[in-house]
Amino acid sequence: MELLIKGGTVVNAQERCEADVLVRDGVIEEVGRHLAAPGAEVVDASGLLVLPGAIDAHTHLEFPFNGTASADDYFAGTRAAACGGVTMVFDFVTQRKGQGIREAVAPRDALCAPKACVDYSFHVALTDLTPQVLAEFSDAAAAGLPSFKLYMVYKRDGLMMNDADIVAALRRSKETGTLIAVHAENPDVIDRNIDTFRAEGKLSPWYHYLSRPEPVEAEADIRAIHWAKSLDAPLYIVHLANAEGMQAVRDAVNAGYTIYAETCPQYLHFTSEVYKRPDGRNFVCSPPMKGQASQDALWKGLQEGYIKTVATDHCPFTQAQKDWGKDDFTKIPNGCMGVENLYPYLLDAANRGRISFEKAVEVASRNPAQIFGCTKKGAILPGKDADIVLYDPHHPFTVSVSNMHSDCDYTIWEGLELSGYIRSTYARGRLVYHDGDFLGEAGYGRFVPCAPRKH
Amino acid sequence: MELLIKGGTVVNAQERCEADVLVRDGVIEEVGRHLAAPGAEVVDASGLLVLPGAIDAHTHLEFPFNGTASADDYFAGTRAAACGGVTMVFDFVTQRKGQGIREAVAPRDALCAPKACVDYSFHVALTDLTPQVLAEFSDAAAAGLPSFKLYMVYKRDGLMMNDADIVAALRRSKETGTLIAVHAENPDVIDRNIDTFRAEGKLSPWYHYLSRPEPVEAEADIRAIHWAKSLDAPLYIVHLANAEGMQAVRDAVNAGYTIYAETCPQYLHFTSEVYKRPDGRNFVCSPPMKGQASQDALWKGLQEGYIKTVATDHCPFTQAQKDWGKDDFTKIPNGCMGVENLYPYLLDAANRGRISFEKAVEVASRNPAQIFGCTKKGAILPGKDADIVLYDPHHPFTVSVSNMHSDCDYTIWEGLELSGYIRSTYARGRLVYHDGDFLGEAGYGRFVPCAPRKH
Amino acid sequence: MELLIKGGTVVNAQERCEADVLVRDGVIEEVGRHLAAPGAEVVDASGLLVLPGAIDAHTHLEFPFNGTASADDYFAGTRAAACGGVTMVFDFVTQRKGQGIREAVAPRDALCAPKACVDYSFHVALTDLTPQVLAEFSDAAAAGLPSFKLYMVYKRDGLMMNDADIVAALRRSKETGTLIAVHAENPDVIDRNIDTFRAEGKLSPWYHYLSRPEPVEAEADIRAIHWAKSLDAPLYIVHLANAEGMQAVRDAVNAGYTIYAETCPQYLHFTSEVYKRPDGRNFVCSPPMKGQASQDALWKGLQEGYIKTVATDHCPFTQAQKDWGKDDFTKIPNGCMGVENLYPYLLDAANRGRISFEKAVEVASRNPAQIFGCTKKGAILPGKDADIVLYDPHHPFTVSVSNMHSDCDYTIWEGLELSGYIRSTYARGRLVYHDGDFLGEAGYGRFVPCAPRKH
Amino acid sequence: MELLIKGGTVVNAQERCEADVLVRDGVIEEVGRHLAAPGAEVVDASGLLVLPGAIDAHTHLEFPFNGTASADDYFAGTRAAACGGVTMVFDFVTQRKGQGIREAVAPRDALCAPKACVDYSFHVALTDLTPQVLAEFSDAAAAGLPSFKLYMVYKRDGLMMNDADIVAALRRSKETGTLIAVHAENPDVIDRNIDTFRAEGKLSPWYHYLSRPEPVEAEADIRAIHWAKSLDAPLYIVHLANAEGMQAVRDAVNAGYTIYAETCPQYLHFTSEVYKRPDGRNFVCSPPMKGQASQDALWKGLQEGYIKTVATDHCPFTQAQKDWGKDDFTKIPNGCMGVENLYPYLLDAANRGRISFEKAVEVASRNPAQIFGCTKKGAILPGKDADIVLYDPHHPFTVSVSNMHSDCDYTIWEGLELSGYIRSTYARGRLVYHDGDFLGEAGYGRFVPCAPRKH
Repeated sequence: MELLIKGGTVVNAQERCEADVLVRDGVIEEVGRHLAAPGAEVVDASGLLVLPGAIDAHTHLEFPFNGTASADDYFAGTRAAACGGVTMVFDFVTQRKGQGIREAVAPRDALCAPKACVDYSFHVALTDLTPQVLAEFSDAAAAGLPSFKLYMVYKRDGLMMNDADIVAALRRSKETGTLIAVHAENPDVIDRNIDTFRAEGKLSPWYHYLSRPEPVEAEADIRAIHWAKSLDAPLYIVHLANAEGMQAVRDAVNAGYTIYAETCPQYLHFTSEVYKRPDGRNFVCSPPMKGQASQDALWKGLQEGYIKTVATDHCPFTQAQKDWGKDDFTKIPNGCMGVENLYPYLLDAANRGRISFEKAVEVASRNPAQIFGCTKKGAILPGKDADIVLYDPHHPFTVSVSNMHSDCDYTIWEGLELSGYIRSTYARGRLVYHDGDFLGEAGYGRFVPCAPRKH
Repeated sequence: MELLIKGGTVVNAQERCEADVLVRDGVIEEVGRHLAAPGAEVVDASGLLVLPGAIDAHTHLEFPFNGTASADDYFAGTRAAACGGVTMVFDFVTQRKGQGIREAVAPRDALCAPKACVDYSFHVALTDLTPQVLAEFSDAAAAGLPSFKLYMVYKRDGLMMNDADIVAALRRSKETGTLIAVHAENPDVIDRNIDTFRAEGKLSPWYHYLSRPEPVEAEADIRAIHWAKSLDAPLYIVHLANAEGMQAVRDAVNAGYTIYAETCPQYLHFTSEVYKRPDGRNFVCSPPMKGQASQDALWKGLQEGYIKTVATDHCPFTQAQKDWGKDDFTKIPNGCMGVENLYPYLLDAANRGRISFEKAVEVASRNPAQIFGCTKKGAILPGKDADIVLYDPHHPFTVSVSNMHSDCDYTIWEGLELSGYIRSTYARGRLVYHDGDFLGEAGYGRFVPCAPRKH
Repeated sequence: MELLIKGGTVVNAQERCEADVLVRDGVIEEVGRHLAAPGAEVVDASGLLVLPGAIDAHTHLEFPFNGTASADDYFAGTRAAACGGVTMVFDFVTQRKGQGIREAVAPRDALCAPKACVDYSFHVALTDLTPQVLAEFSDAAAAGLPSFKLYMVYKRDGLMMNDADIVAALRRSKETGTLIAVHAENPDVIDRNIDTFRAEGKLSPWYHYLSRPEPVEAEADIRAIHWAKSLDAPLYIVHLANAEGMQAVRDAVNAGYTIYAETCPQYLHFTSEVYKRPDGRNFVCSPPMKGQASQDALWKGLQEGYIKTVATDHCPFTQAQKDWGKDDFTKIPNGCMGVENLYPYLLDAANRGRISFEKAVEVASRNPAQIFGCTKKGAILPGKDADIVLYDPHHPFTVSVSNMHSDCDYTIWEGLELSGYIRSTYARGRLVYHDGDFLGEAGYGRFVPCAPRKH
Repeated sequence: MELLIKGGTVVNAQERCEADVLVRDGVIEEVGRHLAAPGAEVVDASGLLVLPGAIDAHTHLEFPFNGTASADDYFAGTRAAACGGVTMVFDFVTQRKGQGIREAVAPRDALCAPKACVDYSFHVALTDLTPQVLAEFSDAAAAGLPSFKLYMVYKRDGLMMNDADIVAALRRSKETGTLIAVHAENPDVIDRNIDTFRAEGKLSPWYHYLSRPEPVEAEADIRAIHWAKSLDAPLYIVHLANAEGMQAVRDAVNAGYTIYAETCPQYLHFTSEVYKRPDGRNFVCSPPMKGQASQDALWKGLQEGYIKTVATDHCPFTQAQKDWGKDDFTKIPNGCMGVENLYPYLLDAANRGRISFEKAVEVASRNPAQIFGCTKKGAILPGKDADIVLYDPHHPFTVSVSNMHSDCDYTIWEGLELSGYIRSTYARGRLVYHDGDFLGEAGYGRFVPCAPRKH
């Protein structure tokens, strides 16, 4: 089966060219001018940008929480992904105490495989870093699972890994070509703040922010970077959201260390002011949105290349679930939606000139592919999977819960006006989304084994 | 009673002058030329430097340990102090769980008062930072106890204060004009290292160093500085011993923050190589001596003003006590001697041109006086206590356990060749040491109430 | 006419892929797998890297000097270029007093056009920055000449532009989308040094270096960067060769300014020690090679992305010409050869793992194309000129004057052992070099009009 | 003759104490408590601060200009000094082409000696740096003239020293223990700006500022610091007035270099906005006042110790002289008054808490004394000259031309409200000013030979 996308502008991370793209059996076969392929389905991409599909490196689908789960299961989440031009998602699997890495992944993969509409892989959040688990890094990597996240926070939930764990994991990651990611916030200060606010009856969402303000996140960023530098091990910081942490990343990168920073659209777009809104609880996630100075620093970091990836931390909870914490911020399930908004948001920023389209592709597709070892993803090049997005930069679009494809019953992005529009998404050559309609199917998505690498 | 010191060179922290010094009733009355005082005892200081007595801001005397105590009780320790030109010591009182601040100090003061040969005050090491204790900061300060130390380490001993404690203490210190000091090392990494070395049978003193290497101390320095910066609160780092921490201090000071760094003669003189010596256990203290790069950074920091004080962490243990850990570094009592070596060591460095005499006076006398609010100490000026040292820069001296005045039966400074010699020490006008002989008496030293201050 | 390069590994600045390349009428038509083109000439590139041709952004061909000219005229120089995988050169035209920009270029273009074997363009070295010349920036840019160099040195030769000129040029460059380059050395200090050495009879090549040591170059780098920052204008520094200047570039880039640094293979490979060799005069160029610390800093800057281009400053003089200064370094014609060594040198570094092949392509091809607005150059992509190099990473090669294609009678690169070898060079689809033989012809190369751009 | 100042608070650069001061034969004899001196004149200093007299390190008295001279001759200038608590001034002697250093000073000293009311010394502005003059550095230093200023500007006036001169002077200063100072502005850019503004008819005082804006001064600061660093020679920057230069000083000092920065009260108090005033020409001096950001940076640098001295650049011109440039800023004589305002201004800042009194004494008295080798000045200490100021911090005072003691017929400080008041000035023990009245006499002031020193 052949597909020929004709007349568009191909944009990769660093280059663009006017070229046709020929896809055969789900793989990009040719990029060229005046391509002809008798019998191929021909798509007219005149006036459109032809982009590699986005990779959302940070999602929590069907996320178990308090006996229930987040609003989007693997089907709904990957459906929304497809409709947002995301052709691969990374889901987080949380290791339970006593579990091995692959042991933790297996049931989640079993759950995901029949539902996934786009390709997927897993990061494993390690919560029990036994010698056996450290030893398993190499086998896990060989099985395509070379990235592990450590929570520096959530001490009371038993998820926190302490500094000795971080050091051990980083050291082992160097031996095995794996990559350690951290959720960086300071547990003791947060917990003390929460206790204080509770005792004082300060329970509105605004206190969610005040319990985790800028320095609380920055401290953990700085600490994680310190350990990585001390071992000269690469480090990936998920959802960076504060200016001082951004500065620490810049300093370390400028000093020659391999520190990858990820941020999320919500940190680029909102500030902590949202927690004063009547629906402030819907914006509750951790780390919380910060002040304007942090948002400015993130944009600058993105423009100058210190932010390496933008992902979503997609983990929506329904209004009913969010309402658990209507009167007490400590009871609000943490998480926001975004997988369908990621690429449109970044491409809109490119369309408005705040970043280049190449930069949007770099942080949303090529960099996650390179960093996490998805060798078949991240570019419109011969031999890559035909994960392709057709983007119309001249067609405006306004986000509303009614035109989103998540199962969640509201969106924090309601009313967002975008200057361009994703026309079509192809996942390995198959059209899975077109002009508002999801055209994919559950089970089409495949597990992508990631390659360990030397960073 | 009058004392007239004639013909010397008075050296204060920033200035020197050829001048006589007249002392009346233990207080410096006049500094001038051609002073005459009929009936006064006249001391010829020709060829000598007339210096303010040193203040050792960091000692552990009669330090309770494993059912016994460190080698120098309050008498022996302050005797050694007097013989080393130290006319005031700060001793550390460790708060026990449930105790108030003054409640913790009272019994130690009662123990010290009848034995002290020179003036003294206390820092309180807080280990139970309850709301009551935080509230007591103001009353403790009013009682002359405005400085508190937090251990960031010794988690297994129940001494560690976590980041929430540090933040709370710093915040409260700003309100009360008190000062927070930290012993900065990372507990979890150290404990993990120790467990690993134990399991591997690596028990020589060299592994004491390897369990607490440079990054382990630096991390805690950086973290403490981060919290201080986040609150714009002053911070005092005791016994800084590593280059990266030194750099963090420089950066913070250059950015306008009030971060005081203290180091000790042992870190300026020895490196971790001592742990390979047969008597390596005698050098075991925490933090351990570090590599040459750290020593170099400390000297540079001292010369350029980023090291604000030099103190000793004086806490000797007898050979028999040190031998508890002969075959297992984890059993070696931590601590080294130094109170009698501090001023001679720094003045020797001045004599050799590595620093100025003014700098030696600044870091050993004037700065601790200013930082800790000893308003009557730290300078040869009218109105100050007549704590005076006469230093002969032309008389060499070699340190040996036989000519020291500690009760300890060895010294890590054995064989140290010094280019100059302390001739006499006056404590509030009384001659307490002269030419090798201790001339003071137990109980002469008084508690010095320190003044809270805005840093 | 079609050419099909099959089975190689295509390496662009940021990506590589296993792909065939189809060329039609001198333009890259398709990049793809399993390409077939009946009737096309097919080249087997199995085991070879398929690279975009290098662009040497800095050459002086047929350079007038003291009534004679540099050793390579436009034919010999571009022949050597082709044989070194360089498919485009920038030549420097020196404006004479009173000349307009295009007026200065016209006769040089007329000289070059019939001789050029590969494509070429010009930078114009401005020496008379009248209001008319500043006004002409826009028309020159429209004519494809948007880059101007200012000499901060050569005051006695009447070439120096002072700071007022630099500021005026930078300001005008912002208005016109042109780019100012500087040769950064401090004229007065050099001239004074030369006078002093002359007076003292210090005339060996070693004094060439001592008359222009590290700080002399660094000062001018720093100054040029200062003016660029003050106007937020982009700046291109040619042949950066010292560590402190490199640091100034890093700082400015990290602060968000657009400062492009170029270095040359000779600075990456040799140090000032060469001036002590018997043939030291052959290495005389300005700026001179510097000490090891500078070389190390350049490599680090290259690896970390602060060096944006590597070019050669190709300006060989024959042995006879060099011998003019046999006894007096001030009489040695300044200049070294390199156009044939540039790409082999960088690709060898990639082959040995010091940089990546992508990086070699980036600094030698893609970056000069982007910075100077050569929109048809710098990548193996559909629509680009078919400037293609086939590189065999497994075939060693030793440089000797006997296997070079310059007209110069020696080479400073004599004996250089390279781990790989350029098999073939295609210039706009035409084979101009293969396995040691030059196959091109004079007059094939065309002037490339460069596009002004917003940097 | 004895003088006893009783009951005041003695403030030195780093310390203060409640003490009496006994003066004998113009020298401070004793500092002490309860001093008695039968027969001495006793001054009641209760409630007053007893300060060392200020040293104005930067004045131009009887400054020849366009065939006339600045408004204050050596008598009027030193009278104003005395009335402002300045007990020593440094005057600038400009070397004429061909003159030796001492040859240049001799006639000025002859002019000054009979008129000087307070002590004085000279800096020599070198304009002809011949080998003979460089050689003379050592003899000049031996004659008490160890400080030389180089103009980096005033090229058209033949005063500019180029970079080769600066390097030669710095190198020679290291050999001789002398100190090089620079007036740092960029000549070519200024001259071009002036030409442009003239041509455009932009001739109001505002264009004085625009012709010498922040980057123009900063460039020269950075360049001078670069050369000093390259030789590790000390450097003194006169009248620093911009933020970027201040930053360059900070960076160099933090890196361990000896870079002294001087600023002036006018830069601390006014901004370039004054040039928009109807009397803007009265504020014309070079460098001009800069924007608010620069003023803020200077204050920060002063508070944090990077500004080492505050001096005045006192060089008033009468209204009639200023009016020469009423319609053309290029014809306005450059210079402002300040010698009588320096100490009151700084002490007012101390009184209001912006700096400490110790800092005011440090930058106005002790630092100039130390930096320039005035060994008998700069502190209230036994053996120092009895240059003493009595300051009443509770007596407000408003500056007006009517209460100033300059010969100039207006003051830029008109209306300045000060929170404290200088009651008395003693010059070597003699009362030269009291409560508004000048009590000194011409010829009392003596030349102070300065000691060369290792910086």
